Amino acid sequence: MSTRRFPVKDPIAHILWEGDRLLVLDQRLLPRRIKYVSCRTAEDVARATKDMVLRGAPLIGVAAAYGMALASRHGRRELERAGRTLLRARPTAVNLKHGIDAMLAAAEGVPEGRLPPAVENAARRFHREDIAGNQRMAVLGASLLKKDSRIITHCNAGALATAGLGTAVGVIRYAHHLGKVTHVYPCETRPYLQGSRLTLWELMQSRVPATLITDNMAAHLMKTGGIDAVIVGSDRIAANADVCNKIGTYGLAILARHHGIPFYVVAPTTTVDVATRDGSRIPIEERSGAEVLRIFGRPIAPRGARAHHFAFDVTPHQLVTAIVTERGVVRPADGRHLKRIAG
Amino acid sequence: MSTRRFPVKDPIAHILWEGDRLLVLDQRLLPRRIKYVSCRTAEDVARATKDMVLRGAPLIGVAAAYGMALASRHGRRELERAGRTLLRARPTAVNLKHGIDAMLAAAEGVPEGRLPPAVENAARRFHREDIAGNQRMAVLGASLLKKDSRIITHCNAGALATAGLGTAVGVIRYAHHLGKVTHVYPCETRPYLQGSRLTLWELMQSRVPATLITDNMAAHLMKTGGIDAVIVGSDRIAANADVCNKIGTYGLAILARHHGIPFYVVAPTTTVDVATRDGSRIPIEERSGAEVLRIFGRPIAPRGARAHHFAFDVTPHQLVTAIVTERGVVRPADGRHLKRIAG
Repeated sequence: MSTRRFPVKDPIAHILWEGDRLLVLDQRLLPRRIKYVSCRTAEDVARATKDMVLRGAPLIGVAAAYGMALASRHGRRELERAGRTLLRARPTAVNLKHGIDAMLAAAEGVPEGRLPPAVENAARRFHREDIAGNQRMAVLGASLLKKDSRIITHCNAGALATAGLGTAVGVIRYAHHLGKVTHVYPCETRPYLQGSRLTLWELMQSRVPATLITDNMAAHLMKTGGIDAVIVGSDRIAANADVCNKIGTYGLAILARHHGIPFYVVAPTTTVDVATRDGSRIPIEERSGAEVLRIFGRPIAPRGARAHHFAFDVTPHQLVTAIVTERGVVRPADGRHLKRIAG
Repeated sequence: MSTRRFPVKDPIAHILWEGDRLLVLDQRLLPRRIKYVSCRTAEDVARATKDMVLRGAPLIGVAAAYGMALASRHGRRELERAGRTLLRARPTAVNLKHGIDAMLAAAEGVPEGRLPPAVENAARRFHREDIAGNQRMAVLGASLLKKDSRIITHCNAGALATAGLGTAVGVIRYAHHLGKVTHVYPCETRPYLQGSRLTLWELMQSRVPATLITDNMAAHLMKTGGIDAVIVGSDRIAANADVCNKIGTYGLAILARHHGIPFYVVAPTTTVDVATRDGSRIPIEERSGAEVLRIFGRPIAPRGARAHHFAFDVTPHQLVTAIVTERGVVRPADGRHLKRIAG
């Protein structure tokens, strides 16, 4: 695909369509183990999504599209059922819905016997568009950064979160390729540690100078470390440009504002949910507290302890300096400008 | 000691003076294992402090006082040498210096042969004062809270951090005893997880309703969870009332201010360092990045990864609503009011 011509490349093949099955890299085991999970049905894709074998809003959308392609072999009724199953896998990322809806649209009016190639082609196209979109965001986002930037990022909005080179990390890596980035600080991102396990790994693979910080070090680093920008991805952007993203993002946005540091969100327009008026209407997935109380299966708290596990939070658009999409930069980040670019 | 008459008690014996040795509970193993480390020399106490067998600024001060008592048996020269060794064990907490200085003062003018009982008595007194101070802070701090308070705390400013019932957690537990606290949210406090391992454990022991959160959930909880106060301890307070405390405290203070939530610091006057003009002059201990890159010895990041490990940060006094000391409440938290109470 067109990534071959782009100067920054995906560090690992993490989603592979093989015609009759989808192979997805098990991101829960990274960086210590490289293992693929084979999905032969839409249900397999839904389970892998729910169990976080794969994660990252854009990647979830692409995987769902291929899940629909697998379901289309069993006829239109199965396709529609698969759409409902996949949609339930994770409630927050809207790209999932976009992927499913695009496949249903591609299937419309197609004779039953022609469904499989029609949906498969649509899934491949959805996949290619994600890759190309990542490259356009990388170019647009890098243009916002000044020379010798020191950057904080959160969670993994990298290659592993998309089908291409990533959203926030795509911008960072391309800006580094241009000589504009001197250092990156990924927040480790408890409880899943996507920052230490995935983002740091991607940055090290591509030789971008990077130093891990715990989530609670960001404020101190902003005060003392000459941070020039915070760059994150998004799981859903409401019509008014409020940004839903991995838990911790909202706090980083407040800290960035307090220190006068620009806060950029990088996300494809498939992340925009025009049907959701503002951030308060985005459902925040609450996962099991057990995922907080154990690290790699080992308890970190007393027996019988309770924990919250909000998976996401919402950053009001007033705290966002700009949203970088593949169609252009939304700045200021508000409903009017968002509609002009992504509407 | 006088804790027996106070309605809230220390949940576990964690520092035991046995006349010829100091037993300290190994807090690194909590809550899974109860194991004591025996210190027979000042060097043993210094090593236990450096290796974080014990932690918490007030407790470090009390342990150092007993370390001095052990050294006093070998004469004045050894006592003075022990003071220098203990002082180097951890650079940030000023209580350490207070404990050492108080013992040196008690030794002044005492004949060589009378040194051991003089210093031991001074250490016991320093210990008792910490216990009594905790109780006074608990009463003063609880009076600041409104009914049905929901509280966020950070790290462990509890019984385990002091010789008594704690500073911030002492306030919380006493306020809960008075029926003023409905729920407590300890931040887990990476990298050492003092919040999940120690504070949550103390709260559960004393049946205070508590739910653990990861450090990066605090902002979302402040926005959505009806939080009424943030209460933390301190490792050193500068003359202008800037507060040095466990990494993550500064970020919480910014988030509290953004949400209009009061931010209280609870610390004995031994935490105040009048010789340090402002927070920028407090040395911030940087510990090994390896302590961030591994959890219970298991790597969470790629081989060869780098990490920062700032152990503390500084919260400017402008973000602090009030400082609760055993001598009174410093409010507003500035140099003038601090001097009036702790000067």
